[in-house]
Amino acid sequence: MNKIYNPTPDTWASILERPTKTVNDIEQTVKEIFAAVQKDGDVAVSNYTKQFDGVSFDNIEVTATEIDAAVASLPNELKEAIALAKANVEKFHQAQKTSRVSVETAPGVQCWQEKRPIQKVGLYIPGGTAPLFSTVLMLAVPAKIAGCNEIVLCSPPDKNGNINPAILYAANLCGVTKIIKVGGIQAIAGMTFGTQAIPKVYKIFGPGNQYVTVAKQLATQFGVAIDMPAGPSELLVVADDTAVPAFVASDLLSQAEHGTDSQVILVSISKEMMDAVENEIQSQLEVLPRKAIAEKAIANSKLIFIENDAIALDLINEYGPEHFIVCTANNDFYVDGIQNAGSVFIGNYTPESAGDYASGTNHTLPTNGYAKNYSGVNLDSFMKSMTFQKISETGIQNIGKAIEIMAEAEGLQAHKNAVTLRLAQIEKV
Amino acid sequence: MNKIYNPTPDTWASILERPTKTVNDIEQTVKEIFAAVQKDGDVAVSNYTKQFDGVSFDNIEVTATEIDAAVASLPNELKEAIALAKANVEKFHQAQKTSRVSVETAPGVQCWQEKRPIQKVGLYIPGGTAPLFSTVLMLAVPAKIAGCNEIVLCSPPDKNGNINPAILYAANLCGVTKIIKVGGIQAIAGMTFGTQAIPKVYKIFGPGNQYVTVAKQLATQFGVAIDMPAGPSELLVVADDTAVPAFVASDLLSQAEHGTDSQVILVSISKEMMDAVENEIQSQLEVLPRKAIAEKAIANSKLIFIENDAIALDLINEYGPEHFIVCTANNDFYVDGIQNAGSVFIGNYTPESAGDYASGTNHTLPTNGYAKNYSGVNLDSFMKSMTFQKISETGIQNIGKAIEIMAEAEGLQAHKNAVTLRLAQIEKV
Repeated sequence: MNKIYNPTPDTWASILERPTKTVNDIEQTVKEIFAAVQKDGDVAVSNYTKQFDGVSFDNIEVTATEIDAAVASLPNELKEAIALAKANVEKFHQAQKTSRVSVETAPGVQCWQEKRPIQKVGLYIPGGTAPLFSTVLMLAVPAKIAGCNEIVLCSPPDKNGNINPAILYAANLCGVTKIIKVGGIQAIAGMTFGTQAIPKVYKIFGPGNQYVTVAKQLATQFGVAIDMPAGPSELLVVADDTAVPAFVASDLLSQAEHGTDSQVILVSISKEMMDAVENEIQSQLEVLPRKAIAEKAIANSKLIFIENDAIALDLINEYGPEHFIVCTANNDFYVDGIQNAGSVFIGNYTPESAGDYASGTNHTLPTNGYAKNYSGVNLDSFMKSMTFQKISETGIQNIGKAIEIMAEAEGLQAHKNAVTLRLAQIEKV
Repeated sequence: MNKIYNPTPDTWASILERPTKTVNDIEQTVKEIFAAVQKDGDVAVSNYTKQFDGVSFDNIEVTATEIDAAVASLPNELKEAIALAKANVEKFHQAQKTSRVSVETAPGVQCWQEKRPIQKVGLYIPGGTAPLFSTVLMLAVPAKIAGCNEIVLCSPPDKNGNINPAILYAANLCGVTKIIKVGGIQAIAGMTFGTQAIPKVYKIFGPGNQYVTVAKQLATQFGVAIDMPAGPSELLVVADDTAVPAFVASDLLSQAEHGTDSQVILVSISKEMMDAVENEIQSQLEVLPRKAIAEKAIANSKLIFIENDAIALDLINEYGPEHFIVCTANNDFYVDGIQNAGSVFIGNYTPESAGDYASGTNHTLPTNGYAKNYSGVNLDSFMKSMTFQKISETGIQNIGKAIEIMAEAEGLQAHKNAVTLRLAQIEKV
């Protein structure tokens, strides 16, 4: 671990720098796969599944029989845990519903804003070592509440051509309309262009490795929206002597086990706390099954001593962490002052895992400093805001003159004319 | 104009196709300019201003003296029109403020969502023939209401090194914090990387030609967010015999005068209305100052006869127009059923110009079919949604078990451990 004491603000940028990724060499591969899927549809998809996932099968859509088997196979204990998490995610996202915003801006000029669901959405759920069924909840639950008609889920098959049963169970429970056994770049390409088996969608959500990330970026060039640009997961904890070192260490480690490129930072105004957390990390690390991964992430982690809370907050806002745990005597100061963070966890009994799984907040959050300009996934991510206006004769008389003057000043005579004709008609009557 | 009668749904996609743009040859230029501005800052910016705008000057930031001169030079009539428009835009966007969404998802588990302003935003306002000071209102007013700290505006200088006084006036009135005389790709690059004179921003808003559009797309690869991908402006009108042909024609023409690539479509269940609108367009077109532009756009326009409202609505949702005017006996049917549109204008006295200038709705809207997956600019465009959670001892006891089970099932032992440690601590006490 790297310990840094009172860094001056001009060094913050380099201290807080995230690892740069080179996407150029990946980009060519991604473009090739996109072109093939656009041209050859399912045939291309099958070829890449064979090549990358090492498996070949006919029907890439998950059947009702497969879902039934998954439902039957899952332990009751896990089903109950998923039910509790789903209920909390539902409560929190249901509460985010907004009603029509309606304003009569001038007499006879009625304007309103409404949100309507994005009709077709695609959810990408990675396979691999950790079957992220929790991400299914985080994406499918708000999609359903938003009212999206078509909710397509793509996830890579294992060597036997199956998707992890917990993923199938969660997808079925949350109202996913179609589950497709396709992963990686070919899944994103399939949802971008549509194939015989994979529906074309309007917006793609979900995490993934760097190939999936670059594929999602490329998808935007073909008219598909994405939830947000992705990067390695990250956690910043600010803790003083009121924090419990063992808890802080466990949170840092739970971030570190995600991947060797995970970002882990402790900021503290207490050198004692920094040392205590460091010791705790070492002892907890020893017994972790994913020790090899966590160890590498921890080696790159940073423990930063800062003189006072005000400077600490500035540094944290400069970083813009995805996850931000606040465990200090001055929690309100940090909570009120944080401008750039994906999700904020407050106090000794609020581990990041709570938000990852079951408290109800969404765990799909902006990484890589994107907390400065992107929201985490929320109900609105599955809707778009539309405006409406209805103007009466009185209304156009009230604002018509202003429109004519402004249109004229912008040199747009036809814009003016659309008003002039109407005003003339009203005067005639 | 192209008249089409009862097209079958399998032909809709080709009938409604927008002109494809090739960005590949532009992309290279954009990348070069980005690299130069990233490397050489203001020196590069100045070189490109000389090359593209044909003007050279020292101080690219607009001074208070220049603003005072602009304020003094603007006719009172125009100032009053701008004041009226600004007041309406303020009312409508102010009403979009949302309060904290707070839910106790389980006893002791308090979750909330808050929106906080994006701290640094950049507004791009094109120069050229039409000085779009109205766009300044549409972007700076919500930025100010959102609470963005730094609102930077870039707009290209004319041959004398000046920005149109109406743009300066509006920018100053709306609380823009810095006005920079830089346009085109170099302006977007400057706001992406920051130079000595141009602040780096977190999100860039505003219209522009295809160079600016590609530059904004490239900016996203450097961590900057953008309002939305842009395309030529477009209008679809659905009108039956209850519409006034002259009004419909004037609306279609006000769209057509934007550019030769503007998209103009009339959908009608009345052949008589189609013919009447066609005649009106011809006669109104003759007297327009921008006739040459409008004529070309109209030549590519489409008048589509559809048998009934239900099919018409399907076709319109398939297209997803930026602007959608509804002038029929069944307005409610269309308003309730429209899923994909940027902004909807209802009835004979609601011209598109009203929304372009003064009704209060935003005129920065998704074109090119992006109404299917993007919102128009609104208050939330200048904010990001963050979540917070605070869990008590009781709270973690209520959801801790579910977290442990799910973390274990995903193979993430450290995530589980963060909860286990806390539960153990509580039991000890």
